[in-house]
Amino acid sequence: MSTIELACELIQRPSVTPADEGCQELIGSYLQPLGFKLESMVFADTTNLWARRGTKAPLFCFAGHTDVVPAGAEHAWRFPPFAATRHEGYLYGRGAADMKGSLAAMVKATQRFVQKHPDHQGSIAFLLTSDEEGPFINGTPKVIETLEARQEKIDWCLVGEPSSTNLVGDVVKNGRRGSLTGDLVVFGIQGHVAYPHLAENPVHKAAVAIAELCAEHWDDGNQYFPPTSFQISNLHAGTGAGNVIPGEFHLQFNFRFSTESTAASLKQRVIAILDAHDLDYSLQWKLNGEPFLTESGRLLEATQMAITEITERTTELSTAGGTSDGRFIAPTGAQVIELGPVNATIHKVNECVKEQDLELLTDIYERILEHLLC
Amino acid sequence: MSTIELACELIQRPSVTPADEGCQELIGSYLQPLGFKLESMVFADTTNLWARRGTKAPLFCFAGHTDVVPAGAEHAWRFPPFAATRHEGYLYGRGAADMKGSLAAMVKATQRFVQKHPDHQGSIAFLLTSDEEGPFINGTPKVIETLEARQEKIDWCLVGEPSSTNLVGDVVKNGRRGSLTGDLVVFGIQGHVAYPHLAENPVHKAAVAIAELCAEHWDDGNQYFPPTSFQISNLHAGTGAGNVIPGEFHLQFNFRFSTESTAASLKQRVIAILDAHDLDYSLQWKLNGEPFLTESGRLLEATQMAITEITERTTELSTAGGTSDGRFIAPTGAQVIELGPVNATIHKVNECVKEQDLELLTDIYERILEHLLC
Ligand SMILES: [Zn+2]
Ligand SMILES: [Zn+2]
Repeated sequence: MSTIELACELIQRPSVTPADEGCQELIGSYLQPLGFKLESMVFADTTNLWARRGTKAPLFCFAGHTDVVPAGAEHAWRFPPFAATRHEGYLYGRGAADMKGSLAAMVKATQRFVQKHPDHQGSIAFLLTSDEEGPFINGTPKVIETLEARQEKIDWCLVGEPSSTNLVGDVVKNGRRGSLTGDLVVFGIQGHVAYPHLAENPVHKAAVAIAELCAEHWDDGNQYFPPTSFQISNLHAGTGAGNVIPGEFHLQFNFRFSTESTAASLKQRVIAILDAHDLDYSLQWKLNGEPFLTESGRLLEATQMAITEITERTTELSTAGGTSDGRFIAPTGAQVIELGPVNATIHKVNECVKEQDLELLTDIYERILEHLLC
Repeated sequence: MSTIELACELIQRPSVTPADEGCQELIGSYLQPLGFKLESMVFADTTNLWARRGTKAPLFCFAGHTDVVPAGAEHAWRFPPFAATRHEGYLYGRGAADMKGSLAAMVKATQRFVQKHPDHQGSIAFLLTSDEEGPFINGTPKVIETLEARQEKIDWCLVGEPSSTNLVGDVVKNGRRGSLTGDLVVFGIQGHVAYPHLAENPVHKAAVAIAELCAEHWDDGNQYFPPTSFQISNLHAGTGAGNVIPGEFHLQFNFRFSTESTAASLKQRVIAILDAHDLDYSLQWKLNGEPFLTESGRLLEATQMAITEITERTTELSTAGGTSDGRFIAPTGAQVIELGPVNATIHKVNECVKEQDLELLTDIYERILEHLLC
């Protein structure tokens, strides 16, 4: 079995979130003969796999997801999205880059490493989920909960998300911004525009506070993070009629925040701005994830060294982009980084990955294991 | 035929906008024998009647509408809405107060007046429409256009809208505020909240301008008008998704404005505020009506005198409330006032009018004719 062959087998299983379609079982069938103990953890509609080789510390963990986003307009694809077509050095298919290619590379790298170093130090684990692209409720968070409950601790976690920009290994994510959503309703009194003295327009009442929220400078970011960004994503007021003063003003906003802020500090500052304007409001928060950062440490060193050794490239550290499951693993105290193939085509039609990149990625993963566990 | 009997006959015709259901024909059948020349003016779905007795100036005109708003929840009515039920001194039914009661009083007052004063000075006219409660396109505006084209000029116009608050005649409307609606779209660049530097949030860009519009003091009003009021009636931005920065921000606002402002001055000021903030926007205006005011003159004097003579009440002048068809007649140079029954139940279930009030209104209308045309 080569990395490419395994990637093809995985792509041919149309595991759109939260389906797994047997991907984890397939991966398990390669890990078990290597001495991994498999533990399937099913929570509601989500399939997860925890596989571990060895019982000693330190524990190195490959993390990833077997689910993919929908194929979208299938007729727009050059090759059928779940056919896993190899063409002119590229492997096409939904999940090729995000992240069945990485999963195959992890398995192959582990196979080679274990065959060469059957008595390696520490332990190796795989943490796989089938709902990374979905509501992230019954996947990684629940597995981490289970591990924490039995005091099973990950020291180093490599997430296979497609971190690379142009060439494999050119970018490693050593953290992610936090994400915090607020749902605000400002209350007024509905009425007829001809009788404004009998009504209270919540849009007018909130206008200055909203302008202040938009103008607020939340922090400067730092070496690893851009400044915290506040964005109003949705707002709505009014009945549709032109002569009715609305009774409620609904507004949804989202913070992407650096490690210079916390969810708690941002909430407090939003509330202070709202309260300074004497508004009648309700505010619901949803914390999608605190930011995390792996500033230094053996995992990062090993990864940077491995990339340079295999590709002769120096890698760039970045925390840009959306959230990843790393946010659930980092709070346990684990060092977490993300390294995977080029992300140019992810979530798009004609998602593809360079076959050679998957080979390089396999080599890099294997070398990381060597740096950490030999 | 008494005022009440004619009001009942009109109410029994369920003339929901733009239907007339023969109301104007019925009224015409009383006016023709009195020497009125009838002219039906049908524009699209709207029926209008222009009826005139005499050819000389000055021309006194009763104006009103035969259409009514829908009955709404019929089961919630005490009596069927189109039955015209007389009960304990009140006449119940859709249109009883707005404004089939007034129409009956106008016809009866005219009948009595013409019988007593067949050789009165000037002329008397009726301007009736069936779309006052609707889109006001094919009703009064088109009739006025027709009259202006042939240089037929109204000097005094009494609109039968229910102006009274507690007792018939306690309030006369001698003007109405203007109404101007703006539809604003502020353009930005849609994007993902994780990549704010690639997007441009139109809500953020517009926030200060919106706050300024809400805080703007447009004018102080005057003796007859409250200050001009600006109200945001509807606004919307966002795709519904929490992670998308909206590409457009839609906002609808309405001015109710005094004679201290004009539609042109308000438009200019809104544009100046928007332009001061370097926004990319489109703005569509709809002028629902310029304000009008009949500050003094023989019509107002005659009306005030008649009310005091018949009811021993002093009337209050007001320009409050929504718009009325008076806005289309006043620009021709006519003096325009509105006098009708108590408006407490209009557009509601159990709409009703005190029978005695319709008798008083008939007397007042007749006395106004005497003051002006004898
Ligand atoms: Zn992914
Ligand atoms: Zn009316």
